[in-house]
Amino acid sequence: MGKGKIAAQVCHASLESYHKVLDRGMGIAEKWVQEGQAKIVLKVDSERDLYELYEQVKRTLPCEIIRDAGKTQINPGTATCIGIGPWEEEEIDKFTGKLKLL
Amino acid sequence: MGKGKIAAQVCHASLESYHKVLDRGMGIAEKWVQEGQAKIVLKVDSERDLYELYEQVKRTLPCEIIRDAGKTQINPGTATCIGIGPWEEEEIDKFTGKLKLL
Repeated sequence: MGKGKIAAQVCHASLESYHKVLDRGMGIAEKWVQEGQAKIVLKVDSERDLYELYEQVKRTLPCEIIRDAGKTQINPGTATCIGIGPWEEEEIDKFTGKLKLL
Repeated sequence: MGKGKIAAQVCHASLESYHKVLDRGMGIAEKWVQEGQAKIVLKVDSERDLYELYEQVKRTLPCEIIRDAGKTQINPGTATCIGIGPWEEEEIDKFTGKLKLL
């Protein structure tokens, strides 16, 4: 994927996951927005790794996986990224701490 | 900027602009979310071009400019991107129609 397509996919994940946290009604999403809404973009090595990470994370943290409609650049239904949180940094790091920055 | 930093900046713009539209209370943001929240990422040639575009767009459409804190990769206060809408595609295209995909 090109840079613009990557950015759009990450935006989908960011907004979907943000809404999940918002729907929990705990004030975490609002606090995150007020405090500068930190976002960190990490990479995995494969789509399989992405699915495995998602299966692990979703047991305990609000997150969302993005599958692309596949109109451009990649095949329909390909998982492109997951969004996690906003949530406690330490809790997210348990799953993502070993991943490198994209 | 690297791909991950670009993606994070675009996410900031996307969420900020989304909130601006949401605050107008016209149902446009909610409709956009329900209908698949299309996002298109375009490029300009310079920071100056970005500011000029922002000055034009903000007169008529909900939009937001993102300035980076400059902790990594770029200087503090550098404008990295703007988010426009969600809004009527035709209205946005009046300003962005000649820009190329990132």
